[in-house]
Amino acid sequence: MLPAEVRVDDLMTAAADLFIAKGIEATTVNDIVELAGVGKGTFYHYFATKEDVILALRERFSRDFTKKVADALAQCPGDDHRARFATWLRGTVEAYIANYELHDVVFHEFRHSNRNSKEKEIVIAQLSALLGEGAKADAWSLPDVRAAAIAIYDGMHGVVDDAIATGNGDAGAICDRLSLLFGRILVA
Amino acid sequence: MLPAEVRVDDLMTAAADLFIAKGIEATTVNDIVELAGVGKGTFYHYFATKEDVILALRERFSRDFTKKVADALAQCPGDDHRARFATWLRGTVEAYIANYELHDVVFHEFRHSNRNSKEKEIVIAQLSALLGEGAKADAWSLPDVRAAAIAIYDGMHGVVDDAIATGNGDAGAICDRLSLLFGRILVA
Repeated sequence: MLPAEVRVDDLMTAAADLFIAKGIEATTVNDIVELAGVGKGTFYHYFATKEDVILALRERFSRDFTKKVADALAQCPGDDHRARFATWLRGTVEAYIANYELHDVVFHEFRHSNRNSKEKEIVIAQLSALLGEGAKADAWSLPDVRAAAIAIYDGMHGVVDDAIATGNGDAGAICDRLSLLFGRILVA
Repeated sequence: MLPAEVRVDDLMTAAADLFIAKGIEATTVNDIVELAGVGKGTFYHYFATKEDVILALRERFSRDFTKKVADALAQCPGDDHRARFATWLRGTVEAYIANYELHDVVFHEFRHSNRNSKEKEIVIAQLSALLGEGAKADAWSLPDVRAAAIAIYDGMHGVVDDAIATGNGDAGAICDRLSLLFGRILVA
């Protein structure tokens, strides 16, 4: 018998693959347990509904996303703030492009009216911390760190979305474009 | 008998008011025709479903939004590009804050996966034109006008969303913050 975390993770991964392949509506709990190779009872031990799986996937997505960026930042000297921002940008753009199909599934119910989602707050907090540290060390000045973090994060999101939509989803080229743009914001 | 455009407009306005007040789900076609003061046949003459009304409201919202900004820009000297950008910013932020409840209703089904929506393209085209003209006149330089337009538009959207969520929805204060930020992007 596999440990509980592994089975939950397998169920979530199976569900994500099916949601991407055939859509949330068309995916049944039967499909999920079959692909995950577990019994239906196991599914209902962890999740009440398909919606619960999506919420769990959303949390996992955000956690994986910020952890990937945090790991990359850990390799970066703490006092090289421009390198840290470049690392954030590269890590974020790459993670988004690599996982946008999953992103679209887990955030399929994203609503503008949900203006303070927990998941968004996590990524904004991470970027705000980075921008705030750079400002404190005079690597740049920012009259409003939070506004800058939100504008940069959402700006990045929109430009990457446009690149995906127009079939220009090359992370390197996107990062070059965004570096020029955001580098102008991060001035003394 | 009122002219057709007036009746359609009245139906749409009645529907919008009801959607905002009690939600889309809870609003019936009966509610809409009652508030608009027309017969049910009139509704079905113009719309097959509630969803059709939302699509029509979405188009009207985007049209009103860009028209408001275009009217303000028409008052601005064509060669004062910084004033034109400030006018765009002020008009956009004010229109969004004034109408965000309607915005949330008509874009309630906004999906990230819908990466090239017609409505977004309209506002991006308007801002791209403004930024492109300024670049051509050397008011600023932009290596990628479209990327700048998207980053500025989505950055504005995110900062205003955050201000609404945190109860700081004063258009003047938001514009001051965004002017400082975007002014850094618009350099020679």
